[in-house]
Amino acid sequence: MDIGIKAIGGYEEVGKNMTAVRAGNQAVIFDMGLNLDRVQIHEETQVEKMHSLDLIDIGAIPDDTVMNEFDGEITAIVCSHGHLDHVGAISKLAHRYDAPIIATPFTAEIIKKEIRSEQKFEVNNNVQTLEAGQKYLLSSDIELEFIRTQHSIPDCVLPVLHTPDGSILYGLDFKLDNSPVLGEETDLERLKELGKEKNVIAAIMDSTRVGEEGNTPSEKIARELVRETLHEAENEDVGVFVTTFSSHIARIKSLTEAAKEMGRRPILLGRSMERYTGTAEQMGIVELPDNTGIFGHPRSREEILKKVKKEGKENYLLIVTGHQGEPGATLTRMANKTLPIEIEKGDQVVFSANVIPNPLTRANRYSLETKLKMQGARLFKNVHVSGHGARQDHYDLIKMIQPQNIIPAHGDLDLNSDYADLAKSMGYSFGKDVHILRNGQELLIED
Amino acid sequence: MDIGIKAIGGYEEVGKNMTAVRAGNQAVIFDMGLNLDRVQIHEETQVEKMHSLDLIDIGAIPDDTVMNEFDGEITAIVCSHGHLDHVGAISKLAHRYDAPIIATPFTAEIIKKEIRSEQKFEVNNNVQTLEAGQKYLLSSDIELEFIRTQHSIPDCVLPVLHTPDGSILYGLDFKLDNSPVLGEETDLERLKELGKEKNVIAAIMDSTRVGEEGNTPSEKIARELVRETLHEAENEDVGVFVTTFSSHIARIKSLTEAAKEMGRRPILLGRSMERYTGTAEQMGIVELPDNTGIFGHPRSREEILKKVKKEGKENYLLIVTGHQGEPGATLTRMANKTLPIEIEKGDQVVFSANVIPNPLTRANRYSLETKLKMQGARLFKNVHVSGHGARQDHYDLIKMIQPQNIIPAHGDLDLNSDYADLAKSMGYSFGKDVHILRNGQELLIED
Amino acid sequence: MDIGIKAIGGYEEVGKNMTAVRAGNQAVIFDMGLNLDRVQIHEETQVEKMHSLDLIDIGAIPDDTVMNEFDGEITAIVCSHGHLDHVGAISKLAHRYDAPIIATPFTAEIIKKEIRSEQKFEVNNNVQTLEAGQKYLLSSDIELEFIRTQHSIPDCVLPVLHTPDGSILYGLDFKLDNSPVLGEETDLERLKELGKEKNVIAAIMDSTRVGEEGNTPSEKIARELVRETLHEAENEDVGVFVTTFSSHIARIKSLTEAAKEMGRRPILLGRSMERYTGTAEQMGIVELPDNTGIFGHPRSREEILKKVKKEGKENYLLIVTGHQGEPGATLTRMANKTLPIEIEKGDQVVFSANVIPNPLTRANRYSLETKLKMQGARLFKNVHVSGHGARQDHYDLIKMIQPQNIIPAHGDLDLNSDYADLAKSMGYSFGKDVHILRNGQELLIED
Amino acid sequence: MDIGIKAIGGYEEVGKNMTAVRAGNQAVIFDMGLNLDRVQIHEETQVEKMHSLDLIDIGAIPDDTVMNEFDGEITAIVCSHGHLDHVGAISKLAHRYDAPIIATPFTAEIIKKEIRSEQKFEVNNNVQTLEAGQKYLLSSDIELEFIRTQHSIPDCVLPVLHTPDGSILYGLDFKLDNSPVLGEETDLERLKELGKEKNVIAAIMDSTRVGEEGNTPSEKIARELVRETLHEAENEDVGVFVTTFSSHIARIKSLTEAAKEMGRRPILLGRSMERYTGTAEQMGIVELPDNTGIFGHPRSREEILKKVKKEGKENYLLIVTGHQGEPGATLTRMANKTLPIEIEKGDQVVFSANVIPNPLTRANRYSLETKLKMQGARLFKNVHVSGHGARQDHYDLIKMIQPQNIIPAHGDLDLNSDYADLAKSMGYSFGKDVHILRNGQELLIED
Repeated sequence: MDIGIKAIGGYEEVGKNMTAVRAGNQAVIFDMGLNLDRVQIHEETQVEKMHSLDLIDIGAIPDDTVMNEFDGEITAIVCSHGHLDHVGAISKLAHRYDAPIIATPFTAEIIKKEIRSEQKFEVNNNVQTLEAGQKYLLSSDIELEFIRTQHSIPDCVLPVLHTPDGSILYGLDFKLDNSPVLGEETDLERLKELGKEKNVIAAIMDSTRVGEEGNTPSEKIARELVRETLHEAENEDVGVFVTTFSSHIARIKSLTEAAKEMGRRPILLGRSMERYTGTAEQMGIVELPDNTGIFGHPRSREEILKKVKKEGKENYLLIVTGHQGEPGATLTRMANKTLPIEIEKGDQVVFSANVIPNPLTRANRYSLETKLKMQGARLFKNVHVSGHGARQDHYDLIKMIQPQNIIPAHGDLDLNSDYADLAKSMGYSFGKDVHILRNGQELLIED
Repeated sequence: MDIGIKAIGGYEEVGKNMTAVRAGNQAVIFDMGLNLDRVQIHEETQVEKMHSLDLIDIGAIPDDTVMNEFDGEITAIVCSHGHLDHVGAISKLAHRYDAPIIATPFTAEIIKKEIRSEQKFEVNNNVQTLEAGQKYLLSSDIELEFIRTQHSIPDCVLPVLHTPDGSILYGLDFKLDNSPVLGEETDLERLKELGKEKNVIAAIMDSTRVGEEGNTPSEKIARELVRETLHEAENEDVGVFVTTFSSHIARIKSLTEAAKEMGRRPILLGRSMERYTGTAEQMGIVELPDNTGIFGHPRSREEILKKVKKEGKENYLLIVTGHQGEPGATLTRMANKTLPIEIEKGDQVVFSANVIPNPLTRANRYSLETKLKMQGARLFKNVHVSGHGARQDHYDLIKMIQPQNIIPAHGDLDLNSDYADLAKSMGYSFGKDVHILRNGQELLIED
Repeated sequence: MDIGIKAIGGYEEVGKNMTAVRAGNQAVIFDMGLNLDRVQIHEETQVEKMHSLDLIDIGAIPDDTVMNEFDGEITAIVCSHGHLDHVGAISKLAHRYDAPIIATPFTAEIIKKEIRSEQKFEVNNNVQTLEAGQKYLLSSDIELEFIRTQHSIPDCVLPVLHTPDGSILYGLDFKLDNSPVLGEETDLERLKELGKEKNVIAAIMDSTRVGEEGNTPSEKIARELVRETLHEAENEDVGVFVTTFSSHIARIKSLTEAAKEMGRRPILLGRSMERYTGTAEQMGIVELPDNTGIFGHPRSREEILKKVKKEGKENYLLIVTGHQGEPGATLTRMANKTLPIEIEKGDQVVFSANVIPNPLTRANRYSLETKLKMQGARLFKNVHVSGHGARQDHYDLIKMIQPQNIIPAHGDLDLNSDYADLAKSMGYSFGKDVHILRNGQELLIED
Repeated sequence: MDIGIKAIGGYEEVGKNMTAVRAGNQAVIFDMGLNLDRVQIHEETQVEKMHSLDLIDIGAIPDDTVMNEFDGEITAIVCSHGHLDHVGAISKLAHRYDAPIIATPFTAEIIKKEIRSEQKFEVNNNVQTLEAGQKYLLSSDIELEFIRTQHSIPDCVLPVLHTPDGSILYGLDFKLDNSPVLGEETDLERLKELGKEKNVIAAIMDSTRVGEEGNTPSEKIARELVRETLHEAENEDVGVFVTTFSSHIARIKSLTEAAKEMGRRPILLGRSMERYTGTAEQMGIVELPDNTGIFGHPRSREEILKKVKKEGKENYLLIVTGHQGEPGATLTRMANKTLPIEIEKGDQVVFSANVIPNPLTRANRYSLETKLKMQGARLFKNVHVSGHGARQDHYDLIKMIQPQNIIPAHGDLDLNSDYADLAKSMGYSFGKDVHILRNGQELLIED
């Protein structure tokens, strides 16, 4: 049974991930993601209302027209986790395939919400859930397995496709975290088992941070950094504002707990805060302190802020959207003085996030930070730990699963080259068993 | 009583710190440090044998000839801690002053060793100890106090000079660490007390990292990072080498404890490892695991390495000198294959240190790292947390002690300007109560 | 007669320059500039309609409320050249002073246009012209002299204030160009004469590029670079678009001449292109090739582009606004496909400008460049030479005029510190005869 | 006839270039270069005395043991130009092949000198010369052609191998300079002719600067920059020292001519200055001003410097080795004060070279520059233009010759990826007709 690995998106950029894997004449699509950078550049863009071909044209979603020359029959669309660069194009592309969408429960919930807010296409694919640690028979021959992992959103998995001739592991995105703050550790036992069978034909791997030496520290370190930042400061009587990724529920958990320790009430502000945290709470994925307030709607945000102002900022920890300086986000609005609360001299503003390395984001952050400083805020930046494994985490994973072929993804040639470099140090050879693909190319692995 | 603050060294560079403070006609010198960069540039230099005037000429030690125009009588040379950029010129300059050297016990021990290894000058100044938390009457009017702090070497203090008209705090180097690994926290109570008295005339402050936003994380974070790096890796059967600062006893403690948890015997290698760790152990400052081996002498290093090789590297954690790629250090020699142990494919080499941002150091590190990689080592870099406070730590300290004047030191104009910027945000004015001095200049604070 | 030098704007930023110089009780203001960065950050800002106090509040114009504590009577507002960071606040601040505005003819013309487009204030100050090389008696005691210099806009001068006790030179902005493309060289003879008289009390100097080692190359080099870029390329049959500073008439001259050599018709597009080039042509400052077309109005731009498209881009050289990716500029509109011409595969787009080092500008340029590349354009960037003197140009100027005091301006502390560093290497001392001021501070030079 | 292209060196680094091209069973080797970086890292290395296998081991020369699995019979070793990264391994590797060395006259002369100074191996290969613009029949089937080009050393060519099925162009190193200072322009006519025949099977291309946007400026620009730097400065009465690449005869020509214009006598100092310039003069390649002095031997250098000192530095322009701060070079010795001339306050030191981006070089330059500044020198850095074509030069060349396949070389994966990116914009596809090879791999192009 020959294996085909078709690079559709994410092989020339960080973002818009999409790969098809074919075993004989049956195939599976992994992820359908968005490239936010390209959406940002074209400011006029309203993604919900746009046609997929136009979005393909500006590079915002994977160009899956290359699937015309792809032989296999698509039996499933499998999503690894709920970030937009992995599921954000589902509502634009999935309806073109007569196949169910398979994802873990939390990811499935996010996908359903995406589909509901779509305004151009009707997406009727069945959304099925598969729990981490479970398997699912796609056909008599082909089985899908979800191996539990950690990243920076709940309920992440490494999907594995088992074929009669061996397995293919879809290795984006993951983190080998020995002491996660939410959920269980990556299932190393199962990964090592796979390796021992010496039967992994190919691993498609996340190149994003393979260029960073060493390991990525645990989310536990992020929790400690957050705690220190909030506790050490001379901040008894000032406002404390923290901004982080809305979908990073583990981080939000740490923040609300830190609030509790400080004797402050945690308040989450912003639509996407409500969406992700609300979903996680309803699904029982996280439990936040009882007095946590979540205010997504602009009107309720307005009201709680008036209350905060009246009762004194020093009694609250405000957890807000806007870590990248996004124009409409809560922190940005605060800096623009269009919300009923003032940033005052001495107030702490904590960015529990990195700056996404993109000139547009840098500009937004620069505007935001300049305004905050002009209002007297004290900034604490990069109080954060990444959710992507670094070079040595990849070393560990590759050593565990012993794949016969490695295909770096989720990056441009530079990042994929970094992966080839790591693989070379482990005995692989570029062009022989490490394959760099460009969007649209297919790798054939003969029997 | 007028106050004079004379900048002697460290006001145009990071390094060779030296400041004289005069109250009326009595004065104290704080620190006498070395500028290692300038020693490195002049390769032929053998510091122990050189005359102070030649060392002044190449910029390696403070130019204290400017003291000729200084009015006060020197009653003491006070050292804040035992790093070379604070005590390394003692053996070249102290004998010119008829005054005792005053330092905490650990610092005093280091100073004595410096003096003993000096080959050019005979330094007969009395070396007196003063414990952190204690005071000492220098004259009927002037009292010296040592306030306990944390940094990256044991037994650090912030010296304060109390005069009839108010106090002067010498604020280099310090870290506001709430959960230190060794020793007690910075004495915030005492600092706040000073502030409440509204009597701090001037604070001479360490600019080194004031340009970094936020706080410096606790040494506890470094301990966690070290642990994770050592535990997470797929390293059961490989050699593990860690290099760090020899004088950073807290870090060495964390490393040896991690070794214990891993079931490996910790071995410390290198002359300076022996010097600092030995001193700390003898003085009861640190207790390392019982099976810790310390081998400073080249011959004993040779022997233990033969034993390690014979019994298997996988049973040991080797803690070695060479974090900056210094030519003669243990790790450098290993990379050069001149020691009886091989770095092999898959071995872990952990740099529990930053790279000192200096082209010579970068070159040494580059050579070292390239050789290590050619031998197959896996590198883990910057597994480290700084010992210098960052911008918000300074904010906290300044807010506590409320000094009437601020004098940034330990940096060039750029870093000192960053301090002025912080001070401005707190209500100080450059040229009015924030004073940027250059080496040789004196600030007069009138009654 | 004591001299006072009051820093009003440009001492904590590059931009919004404004300095007052007082000799006895008579004073002159040099420049009233805008800080474009702060206008950009506050996107909603419509400068023409805003009140000066609001513009001061957001940091867009100098805070001249500090003039309340300034003793001298303002006898003139003197502008060195026509860039917005030197004249852009005239229409907001000049009416507060009962004094004429004095500038060279070209600069005066620009100022008049600024005043005419102002919508908030009525500015009735008399705008007087003084030619480069001329002097003007401000009072019985005080004389103003304009010394010719080069920069990157026509008709620049270094203003000098002659008082009974000596002179003060206002040294921003200048370039020591031995082979300028437009206008005559800086009047070195006169500068050396000033130096020989040993009578320059103070020089206020442009720090912008003093941190760059060496000299700034001549505009002749820029002309050669432009020529090479346009001639060398395989570009016979493609579109060629060049974007540069609208006020950089010398560069525009070189571009139009290169067009002529290539057998292409030069077309200038964009409102500000028309404003500056038109003014320069009318005043006889520059003569462009006969067939040069200038189209500033959107409608005429539309028409000529239709013609260009019809007759073939390969017959034209399009010189357009948009070098910083400004949202409304011609090149940006072309990239957005809202103008009747396409950028096609192989077309040359030449940026004859640097990128202004500001995150907002970088973001704009990134968006612009990404879109251009997606359309197949070949980019030629930084085909440019600066108009500001570098470190050694300042060395030369200081050596010529031998000022008794140096006051760096047009930069933050970092840049001003670089100037202090240069001055130190020439025998000056920081705090003694090199003075770093912050906005609002006044330096007194006693008799 | 199938074509094989074997990557031997320079496909994972900038340096140690070596490629074998096979047509049927006949083959040619292009270049045998050195990797200076690896020689520098291993400080103890004395290249002349080392065995090739040891040099291969440290990565200093290409690992040609991979030629064991190469089928073709080597009929010639062809060198493109005389730089060490192209000819520096000839004396270590050529004797293993029973084939003549073919090069242009100047390159041949350099190769002969390399062979003479070799101390380990006896190299008896015949060194044949072929002029630029000439062809040479290697066998009944295969012809070698040398197409004239420019770079940064005299007498450079782009070698082309003509086979019955088409040609292979070896495109390293080159510059498309329309107005060279020495020698004639690149033979664009011949290149275009090749392209028109649509018969170029493959082009092996220099990736070094393909990541730089735009064109590389002409050497004429470098001449103007040199002139300006030397003329503009206030330097009538000071010493002027210029350092540049010894083999860059065009630059040295410009420098000596500038000396003449300044009324100063040009003096060239340093062994390699003598070697390269002497060779070029003897071969009639360059004519320097009559009063030019060349002093290579340490003793003669000593004597002329005494004379210069006695008669006054202001009468001379000293052109010296040491642009990268090399330990033994003339400028380095001057800075170390071990030569009979002083660098004094105000002296000009001009680096007519870039800094090679390598940490060891940066460290050497840092040491050198710091010492020069401590002695009061004024530095003029990077008065230079590169000899490698940039992105758009490659665009032009590729457009001219229209190769069916492109193989980027002379760089690591990052640089080679940049080439793939350019090629993609021109319609090529990575993996189809753009091939990235690693050292040791062979590309087969079937009939």
